Amino acid sequence: MKKILILGAGRSATFLIKYLEKYAAVYQWMITVGDKDVSLLKGKAQAQTRIITFDLFNEVQREEEINNADMVVSLLPAALHPVVGRTCLKYNKSLFTASYESVEMKSMAAEVKEKGLLFLNEMGLDPGIDHMSAMRIIDRIKGEGHDLKSFESFTGGLVAPGSDDNPWHYKFSWNPRNVVVAGQGGPAKFIQEGKYKYIPYNRLFRRTELIDIEGYGRFEGYANRDSLKYIDCYNLQGVPTVYRGTLRRPGYCKAWNVFVQLGLTDDTYELDNTEEMTYREYINSFLYYHPADSVKTKLFHYMHIDQDSDIIDKLEWLGIFEDKKIGLKKATPAQVLEKILREKWQLMPEEKDMIVMWHKFIYEDKITHQPVTLTSSLVSVGENGIDTAMAKTVGLPLAIATKLYLTGQLRLTGVHIPTIREIYEPILDELRQYDIAFVEKEKEALV
Amino acid sequence: MKKILILGAGRSATFLIKYLEKYAAVYQWMITVGDKDVSLLKGKAQAQTRIITFDLFNEVQREEEINNADMVVSLLPAALHPVVGRTCLKYNKSLFTASYESVEMKSMAAEVKEKGLLFLNEMGLDPGIDHMSAMRIIDRIKGEGHDLKSFESFTGGLVAPGSDDNPWHYKFSWNPRNVVVAGQGGPAKFIQEGKYKYIPYNRLFRRTELIDIEGYGRFEGYANRDSLKYIDCYNLQGVPTVYRGTLRRPGYCKAWNVFVQLGLTDDTYELDNTEEMTYREYINSFLYYHPADSVKTKLFHYMHIDQDSDIIDKLEWLGIFEDKKIGLKKATPAQVLEKILREKWQLMPEEKDMIVMWHKFIYEDKITHQPVTLTSSLVSVGENGIDTAMAKTVGLPLAIATKLYLTGQLRLTGVHIPTIREIYEPILDELRQYDIAFVEKEKEALV
Repeated sequence: MKKILILGAGRSATFLIKYLEKYAAVYQWMITVGDKDVSLLKGKAQAQTRIITFDLFNEVQREEEINNADMVVSLLPAALHPVVGRTCLKYNKSLFTASYESVEMKSMAAEVKEKGLLFLNEMGLDPGIDHMSAMRIIDRIKGEGHDLKSFESFTGGLVAPGSDDNPWHYKFSWNPRNVVVAGQGGPAKFIQEGKYKYIPYNRLFRRTELIDIEGYGRFEGYANRDSLKYIDCYNLQGVPTVYRGTLRRPGYCKAWNVFVQLGLTDDTYELDNTEEMTYREYINSFLYYHPADSVKTKLFHYMHIDQDSDIIDKLEWLGIFEDKKIGLKKATPAQVLEKILREKWQLMPEEKDMIVMWHKFIYEDKITHQPVTLTSSLVSVGENGIDTAMAKTVGLPLAIATKLYLTGQLRLTGVHIPTIREIYEPILDELRQYDIAFVEKEKEALV
Repeated sequence: MKKILILGAGRSATFLIKYLEKYAAVYQWMITVGDKDVSLLKGKAQAQTRIITFDLFNEVQREEEINNADMVVSLLPAALHPVVGRTCLKYNKSLFTASYESVEMKSMAAEVKEKGLLFLNEMGLDPGIDHMSAMRIIDRIKGEGHDLKSFESFTGGLVAPGSDDNPWHYKFSWNPRNVVVAGQGGPAKFIQEGKYKYIPYNRLFRRTELIDIEGYGRFEGYANRDSLKYIDCYNLQGVPTVYRGTLRRPGYCKAWNVFVQLGLTDDTYELDNTEEMTYREYINSFLYYHPADSVKTKLFHYMHIDQDSDIIDKLEWLGIFEDKKIGLKKATPAQVLEKILREKWQLMPEEKDMIVMWHKFIYEDKITHQPVTLTSSLVSVGENGIDTAMAKTVGLPLAIATKLYLTGQLRLTGVHIPTIREIYEPILDELRQYDIAFVEKEKEALV
């Protein structure tokens, strides 16, 4: 009997637990789920699944539970994974996570390998499915002997068309804070036609690309922070264009740029007296003083927004000109903005989110020497506001990887992310059964 | 015989040393000047002045020299002053500097006072003369019983009209790096008509004010980072408008904003391959890819610069579109920009710089209850590219304060900046003899 310890009972855990429970009877697994707050697990797990209140910083409990398990699967925040990893090393357990692989996790590689263990990270959606789906095609194109000229990849967590009832065409299906501070902390870096390109934060939301996906309409993409690291990650050395980005519906970025320009997304300092301040006063504190003009007039003038611009609908719909109290103590501009957006962009229980992933490859055909464009797209719509496409596409890859490992179909050792064929082939194949399937289109370019 | 130890032999030291040497014979002072590199002092000091190669981190030398002196005057970088301060405390010596008073320096206040010593900081131009000249008027307005409604203050280190031969109307008279990264590290904060206002870096150079100074023409000012701290510093609690800024010639900020928007002033990451990169490629790495358009065309399009804009002259004059190699290893965008500007904005030995300081006060007259506007301005032109107005206005206040202290005319103890009448009155009076004089104008507003 194999014992699996799942750490973290957030949204994605539902899919992970449900999947592993399905195979638990077949393979005789014993599942334990631990979280600081087990109320999150109400009605989510079967009776035979053991549920425990788990505190990672309770050393006795941490060591005991990890020692008792055969492997650990973690949905905890990335920053906690080094602690989990070191305990796993101590007791010779493998560890799978959906988080970005930190330098600290990588530094354990030699020891993990030596002990014959596997630490598999970035096993969610983005990072996760993005790696697997891109690498499958990159390996295929190279394997067929073609010359890859360009790789572009975009992902977005959006709202499904049937639940899309606001002028931003956006609702939160993930951590709102990450949406507010997206793109900060360094320029977007990528390579285009062999030239390194850098976009500073203040221009990021004005350098967008439009992308059409059949059946789902038009999207816009802005650049992710560091596309250059994918050159090594995906073995793209010498490929002239490598670009990764984030998808939104058209018009989002132009309106979001107003917040960036005003300074509303700054999370580095506290505003004065946000407890008593109203939304209108919050906006006004970023505008010039004028004895007569309204906040709205000043904003439109300052940001050069035309009277008939669709930006106006978006801003007014958020209620940012209202005399409503913020009611946050000592908040940064970004924290105030997050509060406003949380109220407005909430995905309701009956509403559905939508995941969109889109890759575009251009390669020179080895025989015709003509450029060929290949696109591969994934659209996944959630079941409701709890069982979201986001939770599903993060939880399932991790779950499938766990099954493969416990059933001996994954024999790698060391610290890895799923850019390896042995990992991505079976997982992408099985994800199709869960309607997580990519659609490919290939066409020769009309030069 | 009093012994003065001067640390740091940079540009401002010339004026400091010359002044103190003048009084050394009268008061029987013995002057020692120490610097890592004494070659800077060639021809700057009289024979009786002792010149030593001084390494602050040589503990034996530091302790010996400070112990041997009666007081220490330092023009070292601000970050080094806590080390100097602690040694001064150990040997019961007073310390005068031209640097911003750090939290660490402030933390020594109780001990400094207890020992009957004086640590006097911010004794240069800005900080220094700005405090003294503003406080003299603030104290006068309040002393006469008027109600201060607004305080604005601007300072700029510029180039004198006779040496102003470039389209930016700017040359370096101080640390070029500070000019390149000016305004970064937090929003500009100030209070206007009772409202707190915040300007993010990306808008800073578009929120300028125009200022006319009789005989010197027009200037533009952009906001300094934190004007709010001057509320406590100058006792301006309840004053509805407090704003401090930096002066440039009109047009500078609009053109500089192009660099900010492109991302050229970012000092937080290294560009790829700056050693082989040309100026033109450097600019191109911040622009979108286009198969045919020139870098110049792309820049003007991207930044919405009209074909007849004066921004074009400024950019072309800097040579940023030339195929000239940068030749810097692993440089940040800001370091590359600094290199370009250093070549172009160099103040030549025969050229003159110019310091401009401008305060504007609005108060309600206690009798007429009418608003009165009072401006106070200082313009100081340098002698040449070495004996600059910048060096003079930084070095002289420190020198005069030193004389006052050694001759018993300054009897304060503790850690202070020159916002106190006992300090500013005699120093401002004596500075007039050196042509560092403010011109006041008062007028009742036409309401």
